[in-house]
Amino acid sequence: MSKINVAVLGATGSVGQKFIELLANHPWFELIEVAASNRSAYKKYGEAANWFMQTPMPENIKNMEVKECIPNLTAKVVFSGLDSGVAGEIEEKFASAGYTVISNSKNHRNDVNVPLMIPEVNADHLAMLKNQSTGYIVTNPNCSTIGMVTALKPLYDKFGIEQVNVVTMQAISGAGYPGVPSLDIYDNVVPFIDSEEPKMEKEPLKILGKLNSSNKVEFADIKISAQCNRVAVIDGHTECVQIKFKKKPTKEEIIEAWTSYRGEPQKLNLPSAPKQPIHYFEENKYPQPRIHRNLEGGMAVSVGRLRECPLFDFKFVVMSHNTVRGAAGGTILIAELMKEKNLI
Amino acid sequence: MSKINVAVLGATGSVGQKFIELLANHPWFELIEVAASNRSAYKKYGEAANWFMQTPMPENIKNMEVKECIPNLTAKVVFSGLDSGVAGEIEEKFASAGYTVISNSKNHRNDVNVPLMIPEVNADHLAMLKNQSTGYIVTNPNCSTIGMVTALKPLYDKFGIEQVNVVTMQAISGAGYPGVPSLDIYDNVVPFIDSEEPKMEKEPLKILGKLNSSNKVEFADIKISAQCNRVAVIDGHTECVQIKFKKKPTKEEIIEAWTSYRGEPQKLNLPSAPKQPIHYFEENKYPQPRIHRNLEGGMAVSVGRLRECPLFDFKFVVMSHNTVRGAAGGTILIAELMKEKNLI
Amino acid sequence: MSKINVAVLGATGSVGQKFIELLANHPWFELIEVAASNRSAYKKYGEAANWFMQTPMPENIKNMEVKECIPNLTAKVVFSGLDSGVAGEIEEKFASAGYTVISNSKNHRNDVNVPLMIPEVNADHLAMLKNQSTGYIVTNPNCSTIGMVTALKPLYDKFGIEQVNVVTMQAISGAGYPGVPSLDIYDNVVPFIDSEEPKMEKEPLKILGKLNSSNKVEFADIKISAQCNRVAVIDGHTECVQIKFKKKPTKEEIIEAWTSYRGEPQKLNLPSAPKQPIHYFEENKYPQPRIHRNLEGGMAVSVGRLRECPLFDFKFVVMSHNTVRGAAGGTILIAELMKEKNLI
Amino acid sequence: MSKINVAVLGATGSVGQKFIELLANHPWFELIEVAASNRSAYKKYGEAANWFMQTPMPENIKNMEVKECIPNLTAKVVFSGLDSGVAGEIEEKFASAGYTVISNSKNHRNDVNVPLMIPEVNADHLAMLKNQSTGYIVTNPNCSTIGMVTALKPLYDKFGIEQVNVVTMQAISGAGYPGVPSLDIYDNVVPFIDSEEPKMEKEPLKILGKLNSSNKVEFADIKISAQCNRVAVIDGHTECVQIKFKKKPTKEEIIEAWTSYRGEPQKLNLPSAPKQPIHYFEENKYPQPRIHRNLEGGMAVSVGRLRECPLFDFKFVVMSHNTVRGAAGGTILIAELMKEKNLI
Repeated sequence: MSKINVAVLGATGSVGQKFIELLANHPWFELIEVAASNRSAYKKYGEAANWFMQTPMPENIKNMEVKECIPNLTAKVVFSGLDSGVAGEIEEKFASAGYTVISNSKNHRNDVNVPLMIPEVNADHLAMLKNQSTGYIVTNPNCSTIGMVTALKPLYDKFGIEQVNVVTMQAISGAGYPGVPSLDIYDNVVPFIDSEEPKMEKEPLKILGKLNSSNKVEFADIKISAQCNRVAVIDGHTECVQIKFKKKPTKEEIIEAWTSYRGEPQKLNLPSAPKQPIHYFEENKYPQPRIHRNLEGGMAVSVGRLRECPLFDFKFVVMSHNTVRGAAGGTILIAELMKEKNLI
Repeated sequence: MSKINVAVLGATGSVGQKFIELLANHPWFELIEVAASNRSAYKKYGEAANWFMQTPMPENIKNMEVKECIPNLTAKVVFSGLDSGVAGEIEEKFASAGYTVISNSKNHRNDVNVPLMIPEVNADHLAMLKNQSTGYIVTNPNCSTIGMVTALKPLYDKFGIEQVNVVTMQAISGAGYPGVPSLDIYDNVVPFIDSEEPKMEKEPLKILGKLNSSNKVEFADIKISAQCNRVAVIDGHTECVQIKFKKKPTKEEIIEAWTSYRGEPQKLNLPSAPKQPIHYFEENKYPQPRIHRNLEGGMAVSVGRLRECPLFDFKFVVMSHNTVRGAAGGTILIAELMKEKNLI
Repeated sequence: MSKINVAVLGATGSVGQKFIELLANHPWFELIEVAASNRSAYKKYGEAANWFMQTPMPENIKNMEVKECIPNLTAKVVFSGLDSGVAGEIEEKFASAGYTVISNSKNHRNDVNVPLMIPEVNADHLAMLKNQSTGYIVTNPNCSTIGMVTALKPLYDKFGIEQVNVVTMQAISGAGYPGVPSLDIYDNVVPFIDSEEPKMEKEPLKILGKLNSSNKVEFADIKISAQCNRVAVIDGHTECVQIKFKKKPTKEEIIEAWTSYRGEPQKLNLPSAPKQPIHYFEENKYPQPRIHRNLEGGMAVSVGRLRECPLFDFKFVVMSHNTVRGAAGGTILIAELMKEKNLI
Repeated sequence: MSKINVAVLGATGSVGQKFIELLANHPWFELIEVAASNRSAYKKYGEAANWFMQTPMPENIKNMEVKECIPNLTAKVVFSGLDSGVAGEIEEKFASAGYTVISNSKNHRNDVNVPLMIPEVNADHLAMLKNQSTGYIVTNPNCSTIGMVTALKPLYDKFGIEQVNVVTMQAISGAGYPGVPSLDIYDNVVPFIDSEEPKMEKEPLKILGKLNSSNKVEFADIKISAQCNRVAVIDGHTECVQIKFKKKPTKEEIIEAWTSYRGEPQKLNLPSAPKQPIHYFEENKYPQPRIHRNLEGGMAVSVGRLRECPLFDFKFVVMSHNTVRGAAGGTILIAELMKEKNLI
C-alpha cells in the first residue's frame, strides 16, 4: 500500500510542530510539504521554525522548503495548525480548490456542514460531509473540550446527562508559542483564558448531537458551565467535572462504562488510536498531567477521583494531553478514520 | 501601654515561621518564647529551624532557646502552629493550665464551645468562650476556607445563600515544610489534598452560623461541594466559586456588597486588619496569586471574574494568601480582636 | 525641601514598571510624567501598561497620560528604561536638549564620557560628566554585572585581582516583558543569553577603572571569562565566581573586606542605599534568590560559599536582585548620589 | 538465547523505579525480583512504591512481592539503587555471597579494586575485577560526573587535559524521592549539593586513569574545580565546562573528536548504547535539558556552545539525563558490557 501524501499548514507553530513530530514514521501518511506564513515561506524549515518539541526535528523535514499557504500544494490532504486569525479564509480556499482540510483551528467548528470530530465519540458525523461540495473541511474540537467529552460520551449514552459543571487547569502549551510569558505564569495561576469558556459550553452539544436525516446535527440538550484557568504545567489539561444525570448510575456503573468503552478507532484499529480510550485510576491522587499525559502515546484520556457530589450526582477529574489527544494527535486520528471510510 | 507577652508553639514549622515573621515589631504583642517538638527543644532557634521565609530571621529570635511544648511558659497567650498529629492534646493542656491558645490547627475546630473565627465574619462568636473554663481555645479555619467565607459573608447577609460550589487551586506552602516534594508538583497538578474537601464543606457552616442564647452555634443551612487541587504556586490559594442565592442579586449589588464590606477588625482599626477586607478586580485576568497575595500585607481577599452562571446564579474567582490571611496573619488578627474585647 | 520632578521613559516595560513602583513615595523625587512608545502614548497609563509588579499600580499613576518620548517633558531628570532598540537616539536627544538622562539601557555604557555607575563602587566617576555638555547621560551597568562587581570592589581595592571566572544563573525578569516564553524556560535551563557574556567581560573593567586627570577612565587590568545561563527564577541573578588575586588573602580577610565595606551611598545615607551593601552568609546553602533578593529592599548584594579553589585562589556565590539592585533601584540610587553632589 | 535473571535492590526509590522502567522489555535481562528496605518488604510492589515515573508501572511488577535486601535472591545479578546510608554493607554481603552487584551508590566507588565505569570511557577497567574474589562489585559514577567525563574522554585521548573547571545546574531528580522540597527550589536556585563537588573533582581521575599491570588504576593527572547548584529542572544536568589542554586543538578538531567518538558499547552494539554517544549542537541556545535529555533514549550526551575562553583554552556546555545516562541507564549498560565480556 502506498502512503497518502499530506501537508501541514501553519507548520512552524506549536501545533504544526506537533503534527510534524507525530507524522514522522506514520504508517499511512507521508508528510511531503510544510507551509506557513509569509515570514517563513521559502526558508528551509530548520531555519524558519523555533523547534521546541522534546524529540529532535526529523532530519528529512529540516531541509524542506517552507511553502506559502496557498492551494497549489501537491498533497491533497492538509492538516491545519493555522492561527485562527488567518485559518478561516485559508482553509476555505483550500477546500474550494478540492483539498481535504482537517483543522485544529476554531474558525469553522460551528459551520453547519462541518463535522466537529472526536473519532471515538461521533464517527458517524462524517456523514455531514455529504453536504459539503468540492473539497472538505473537518475540524477537531478545542483541546479542553476533547478530554471532557470523551469521558462524557459513554455516560451520556447509557445514563443521559442534564448538567455538566467543569473547572479547568490548563497547560501553557495550549496557548501556542511563544504563548504565555514566563513572567505571567510562573508561581501563578491565571484564572482566565480568552474565549475558552464559551467553547467548552457549546462544542460538546454539537459533538454529542445526533445527525438527522439531512445530515444536520441536532444538538444535545445539556446545560454546561465552564471556568477555565491557566496553570504552570507544560502539557496536559486537568479538569474537575460534575455531572447531573438523567438517570443516576452507581459509581461502579460509571467506571464500567468508562473502562469498557470502545469507539470506531478501536474497532478499526486505527494506527493512532489508543487501545483503551478512557483509563480510570483508583488512587486518590490520580490522574496527574505529568504522569498520565503520555498514556497510550498521549491519546488516552485519564479519569479518577469519582465520588458522589452534594450538589450534582457525581464529581470526578479528567486529564488529557492537550497537544496530542487535544490537537495534532486527535486531528491525525480523524484523518485515519476518513481514510478507512474512503473519504480521503 | 506595655505589650502583651506571647509565645509560639510549633515555632520551627512553616506556620510557626510565619508567626515569627509577622510578630516581629508587632505593636501590641511581644514574642518572648518559642516552643517546638523535642527534636528542636533546648537548641537555639537559629539552629533548630530551617528558615525559609523571604525576609531574614529576626535577630532577637536567632538566639532564643527553643522550649518544650509544655504549659510552663511565661507568656499566657500562645499561638499554635502545631502539627495536627500533636496539636489536640498539647492545646488542651495549655488551656487547662489557664493559657489562651489561639490555634491554626484543625483539632479543636469542631468542638462545640470553641469558636472558629474569621474576625471580619463572626467576631460575635467570641461569646462562645463563656462556655469554656480555665483557659481558652480559639481556632482559625482552614486556609482554603478563609478566603471563600470572607467573600461569602456580605452576600450571605444581604441575599442569602443556598448552594456553594468551589474548586480550588492551592499553593504548596499550604502543605507545610518539607511538605510537597518538588518531583510531585513541578510541571504537574495533584487533584487531591487529604481531608481538605470535607473541611471546606463543613467549616463555613459553623463560621456563618448564628449563636443562640446559650452561645452555641446554629449552623448555616448551605449545601457546599468542594474539589481541592494542589498547583505549582508558592503562596496564595485561588478558588473558582459558584453560588445559588436565596434571592438573586445583580452583579452590581454583589460588587457593592463586597467592596463596601467592613467587619469588626476594620471598625476597631486592629493593627493587622486590612483597610478593605475584599477587593474586587474588573480585569478578566485577575485576581492572581503572585500579583495580589500580598495586598494589604497579605490580609486582604481578592475577588474577580464575577459573571452569571448557566447552572448556578453567579460564578467568580477568589484568591487569598494562605499562610498570612489563611493562617498566621488571621490567627494574630483573632488575638488582636480578643485584646480589644479584653479577653486577653 | 521641595521634591525634584522626574519622568520615566519606557514606562510600560518591565524596568519602567519597577521604576514607578520604587519611585512611589520617594522622599526626594516626584514622578510627574511617564513616557513610552507611540503605541502607548496618549493613553492612560493604567490602560497602556500590562502591570505585573507584585504591588498594585500606584493610584496617582493610573490616570496619568502616557507621553511620547520626546524632549518636551516638564521634568528635567528622566530615568530611562527604554528598549535598547530605541534608547540610544532618544537618550541623546534628551541630553542635547539639556535633560539629565539616567539610563538602564546598554546603548551609551561604553561611550567615552559617559559614566557607568555603581554608586557604591565608582561614585568618583561622576567627574566624567565634566566632559559632557548641555545635558547629561549617566548609565547603570548590566544587571548581571552589578552584583558581581559590587562583591569584587572591596577585594580589588585591598588585594588586587588578576582573573575572574563567572558562571551565571539569571532570572527571567532580566529579559523584560513578555520576555522569555514559559515554554522555553519551564523545566529547563537555557545556556545562552544574547550578548550578555561580552557585557560581563567588559563592563567591570570600566567600572573598576581609575579616572585620569582628564576625567577619562583607565580600564582595570583584569581578565574575565563569563558564561551566562537563564534559569526558572523570577527575580535574582545567582553567580558562581572564581578569583585569582594579585596577593592572595585569607578567607577571613575576604569576609571582613565584604562585610565592612561601605561606599559613598552609605556615607551619604542616601534614601535607597542599603545600610550594608554586601552581606556574607555562613550557611552552605546560601545565598538563594528567593530568600535573599529582597534583602535591604532588594538593594543589598548577598555572598556565600567562600572557599579555596583548586584552579583559582577562591570561589564563591554572589546573588542580587536584577531588577532592583541591578536595574531600576540602582539607577535611582545614581540619581540620589547626583542630587547630593548637586549635579541635578 | 535465554535471558539473564536480574534483581533490583532499593527498588522503591527513584533510581530503583527507573531501573524497573528501563528493564521492562529488556532483550537480555529478565527482572525477576525486587528488594527494598524492611518498611516495604513483603508488600506487593504496587503498594510499597510511590511510583512517579512518566510511564505506568509495568503490570508484571505490580504484584511482585518486595523482598528483603539479603543475599538469598534467585537472580545472581543485582542492580543496586540503594541509599548510600545502607548500600555499603548490603552490597558487600551480596558480593561475598557470590552475587554480581552493579551499583549506582557511592559507597564503593573509591575502593581500590572496584571499577568505576562509564562503558564508553573505560571498558578496559573491568579487568580490575580480577582482583575481586567470590562475587563482584562494579560501580557507576555520580550523575553529574558521567556527562562531563564522557565529553572529556575523546579530548583527553587526543589532546591531553591539564585543567577542568565546571559549574553545574542539576535537576531535582538527582536528589531522589521525596528529595528536594518544592518550597526549597521553586522560583529558586540552591547553590550547594552536599558532597557533590568532591565527587566531581575526584571521580574523573579514576575513570580516566590507566590500568597498570596489576590491574590497579593510575589516576589521571588533571586539576578539577567543581561548583554544584540545584535548579528547578526535573531531569537533566546542565554543566558549564572550561578546559585547559596539554596541546590546544582547534574548535573544529574538538567537534570532530566528539561527534566521531565511539566506545566499546557502540562497537559491541549493546542494546542500551546510544548510536552516537556525544551529540554536538551548533545552535547557541542548545543543549537544553527539556529538549535533549531524552536523546537516544536518554543515553546520549549533548554538548554545545563551544568557544574559546579568555582564561582557559575552551569553554562549552554539556547536558545529560541524570537518572538515565547518569544512573539506571548507565548501570544497565555496564551490565550489558559485562555480559558481552562473559563476566555475568
